[in-house]
Amino acid sequence: MLILEKNFKLRVFEIIEKGEEDDFLSRLFDYFIVSMIILNVLAIILESFYSVYLRYGYLFKSFEIISVAIFSLEYILRVWTADQKYKDKKKIFASILFIISPIALIDLFAILPFYLPMIIPFDLRFLRMLRITRLMRIFKLNRYSNALSLVGRVLKNKKEELIITISITFLLVLFASTLMYYIEQDVQPDVFPNIIAAFWWAVATLTTVGYGDVYPITVWGKILSGLIAVLGIGLVALPTGIISSGFMEELSQNNNQNDTVKSAKYCKHCGEKIND
Amino acid sequence: MLILEKNFKLRVFEIIEKGEEDDFLSRLFDYFIVSMIILNVLAIILESFYSVYLRYGYLFKSFEIISVAIFSLEYILRVWTADQKYKDKKKIFASILFIISPIALIDLFAILPFYLPMIIPFDLRFLRMLRITRLMRIFKLNRYSNALSLVGRVLKNKKEELIITISITFLLVLFASTLMYYIEQDVQPDVFPNIIAAFWWAVATLTTVGYGDVYPITVWGKILSGLIAVLGIGLVALPTGIISSGFMEELSQNNNQNDTVKSAKYCKHCGEKIND
Amino acid sequence: MLILEKNFKLRVFEIIEKGEEDDFLSRLFDYFIVSMIILNVLAIILESFYSVYLRYGYLFKSFEIISVAIFSLEYILRVWTADQKYKDKKKIFASILFIISPIALIDLFAILPFYLPMIIPFDLRFLRMLRITRLMRIFKLNRYSNALSLVGRVLKNKKEELIITISITFLLVLFASTLMYYIEQDVQPDVFPNIIAAFWWAVATLTTVGYGDVYPITVWGKILSGLIAVLGIGLVALPTGIISSGFMEELSQNNNQNDTVKSAKYCKHCGEKIND
Amino acid sequence: MLILEKNFKLRVFEIIEKGEEDDFLSRLFDYFIVSMIILNVLAIILESFYSVYLRYGYLFKSFEIISVAIFSLEYILRVWTADQKYKDKKKIFASILFIISPIALIDLFAILPFYLPMIIPFDLRFLRMLRITRLMRIFKLNRYSNALSLVGRVLKNKKEELIITISITFLLVLFASTLMYYIEQDVQPDVFPNIIAAFWWAVATLTTVGYGDVYPITVWGKILSGLIAVLGIGLVALPTGIISSGFMEELSQNNNQNDTVKSAKYCKHCGEKIND
Repeated sequence: MLILEKNFKLRVFEIIEKGEEDDFLSRLFDYFIVSMIILNVLAIILESFYSVYLRYGYLFKSFEIISVAIFSLEYILRVWTADQKYKDKKKIFASILFIISPIALIDLFAILPFYLPMIIPFDLRFLRMLRITRLMRIFKLNRYSNALSLVGRVLKNKKEELIITISITFLLVLFASTLMYYIEQDVQPDVFPNIIAAFWWAVATLTTVGYGDVYPITVWGKILSGLIAVLGIGLVALPTGIISSGFMEELSQNNNQNDTVKSAKYCKHCGEKIND
Repeated sequence: MLILEKNFKLRVFEIIEKGEEDDFLSRLFDYFIVSMIILNVLAIILESFYSVYLRYGYLFKSFEIISVAIFSLEYILRVWTADQKYKDKKKIFASILFIISPIALIDLFAILPFYLPMIIPFDLRFLRMLRITRLMRIFKLNRYSNALSLVGRVLKNKKEELIITISITFLLVLFASTLMYYIEQDVQPDVFPNIIAAFWWAVATLTTVGYGDVYPITVWGKILSGLIAVLGIGLVALPTGIISSGFMEELSQNNNQNDTVKSAKYCKHCGEKIND
Repeated sequence: MLILEKNFKLRVFEIIEKGEEDDFLSRLFDYFIVSMIILNVLAIILESFYSVYLRYGYLFKSFEIISVAIFSLEYILRVWTADQKYKDKKKIFASILFIISPIALIDLFAILPFYLPMIIPFDLRFLRMLRITRLMRIFKLNRYSNALSLVGRVLKNKKEELIITISITFLLVLFASTLMYYIEQDVQPDVFPNIIAAFWWAVATLTTVGYGDVYPITVWGKILSGLIAVLGIGLVALPTGIISSGFMEELSQNNNQNDTVKSAKYCKHCGEKIND
Repeated sequence: MLILEKNFKLRVFEIIEKGEEDDFLSRLFDYFIVSMIILNVLAIILESFYSVYLRYGYLFKSFEIISVAIFSLEYILRVWTADQKYKDKKKIFASILFIISPIALIDLFAILPFYLPMIIPFDLRFLRMLRITRLMRIFKLNRYSNALSLVGRVLKNKKEELIITISITFLLVLFASTLMYYIEQDVQPDVFPNIIAAFWWAVATLTTVGYGDVYPITVWGKILSGLIAVLGIGLVALPTGIISSGFMEELSQNNNQNDTVKSAKYCKHCGEKIND
């Protein structure tokens, strides 16, 4: 009986977690979940159209109940089979480890808004959109897996340089906002009522978005704005250079590895090893 | 008779397809077609000015009829001589292979709108502009050919990384749009009536275009907008880094080939040449 | 007595300047100053909200007095202990050296506005925001130190190329502004009243910010604007390329150092090791 | 007499063209011309302010006459001494060669508007701003000379790839404009009256400037706009990647040259040449 249950649990784990290529049930389950997520995303978007909501509101309600039921069941099954994932842990520890893992937390947040309205009055329905994060996992299954891990590795390697760049930018934006507030507050009190409003201008300018809802009209304000816009070019150039060099580093490491693998050769004249 | 026809077909093929440098008729035909395309593009642009259309409408009509006649004749000749292009295929197969090739399909779409109005009521006249794609083929003739294939090769090599970047961006935009819709819908119901409208905002912000027709006015909306704009910098930096490394990879491969020629190394044990 | 004073001065210097990891008092002082700076920044931002200022104005006033007192005391102590920093200089020279160092000047400017209103009528309160520059020094303490110096080194190495790029851009902007002024002044005399106004347009276009407050409406103006916008792409591409190559240079120098260690080559004539 | 004239001509040439470091008169002339150019630029900018022009119009008039007199004299002297520059040419050929050189043509255009109003009725005064191009030549004198030639070399080496990118972009913009015109003309006939107007939208979107004066309002128009904006990211990424690789190429060539110079070494064990 115990072995039977164990086998059954293993089978459930194989099905709900990514299994082998030739495991028909596992693949069917994957396709089913992916389809459910895409339908959910479409439903959330369509539901936001008021006219559509008025007419088919009950349908969206029903579909949401069914979706949450499926995702909840899947979540419970994954908590139950967590000891198959973390095999060296005890059952209860494995479940806790799974529950506090980022992936599981996101999944939990995606179904929680359905249960919460009974408790919390906030509108947390947007959390349902978190379901799309699960689509990311599709990339892990296929030939994009290498590219994904490469991009991730580059960003991780260059983390410190990128954080430095962002930090300096943030301090710069803060100083520019304060300066702009003192320059423009008397002339445009409605547009720059406080430093936070100037902060909004600084971000829009530095990132070169430039919505055009907030811009300086005094001469000094325009000079500051021009300087910030030019620095914005630097804000693009620095991380791009950092990331470029990150990709190059990965590239040259691969080349070096290939070289090392290839170059374990032997001299054909005397038979001695070269490069040792 | 049969041989004569064959020779005639070969000659037609030589003329309409890119021939030798010193083939006068072939070059004349090329210049004629390129001139026709440029005149067509100019005609389509001029025709869009209402005042010009009112006055010279009949001229544009006549020119369009002549153009379509020429392009149709050329298209038929190319289908007819397709067995000269795919020499190892049978005549009928060669024609079908040519018709379903992307280049031929674009050419077909460029003349089809003239014949279609009799069948389909849609306004497909914009398809006439597809004729400009043929101008691309000029690059294949000359010294830009290497540069074109280099750019193409880099984009192809880095396809997976670029697709991953675009996919992650798309999911991010989708999530940001949903969040923005829930944040701003009560304050600006006209600007953010549904998630698709918020999507328009998200694309304009992430690509740092920032038309200024749609922007948040709440504090949380502005914070989200700032975050997306900063991530937009990353959206520029990542593909640029990827493409940079792609160009460098091509470069270093060329260098390695050169290096192999140069790097005549010698065994340290016997002093004989390695790699010969 | 003299030795006692010297020891006391050394201890003060250790505490106010960055000390050892296990120096409790020194670390406590660091945390205290950083907290004071962050509170100051928050106060300056909050104070800019008129409603907040009306209600809690006296609190901000008191906090500012306390802050300036602390920063002034710290400044005086650092001037006093300057001979511990520049040990080979005489006391008075060390103090002067410290006072005219950029870091000390910024710190001085950050407290000066408090004392100045009695002398100068200008509103220099924005200078208080200079206090955030001190937050930059946090990076020097930890593992971001390498990344910071790398970014700094790259920018320094590529200084000349970047200055050239900015100079050419500046001359280009100046010429485009003049041209645009002559093109648009008759049609939009309010928007382009003089060349400086056109300069504002040129900067907004070249940096691709595009607020939308100033744009050409004539055909020639639009053509010029399009050209400038396309050149703006180049303005992003050039410094990015320069900075990318700067990061790569740093990278390859590191690699070369590693290579030198690895690349124990051997003479082909005698088989002995080269480079040892 | 003839020799005296020749010596005098050589001396004039040395003074007006860039001479030796220790040639006092030559340096004085350089500083004088650079000052004149900067004053001219300032005068053109100030003159564009209507109130300034009203009050000091006669001053600007006088200064312009003096400037043109000086620049005209310098131009004549440089034509006269052209045979010192192109020493292997005959006198008359040297003058013609100088007159049709780009540098001389720009200088001519910069003084021509003063003489032309008597002949041509157009307002060519903006051409006076061409005088700033002469400031570029300052860079040739000093330590920025290497950086300038490096940037120039990279752009020249990558000319073909950059032209290809711009050409493809141009065709894309043309097609997108036509499509947008057909999509939006019925809904916004005022905003998209013809394809050229749509072209203005396409350039503003692709370069991510986004003034906000022209944007689509239909669903299909917005989808097209989003696509073009995303492609705009590519328009930034491609030339940046190309230019980055160009700078890297220059870098690695320098390194190779250094390697070649260094590696002309001799084995210290047997004294034979390595790497021959």
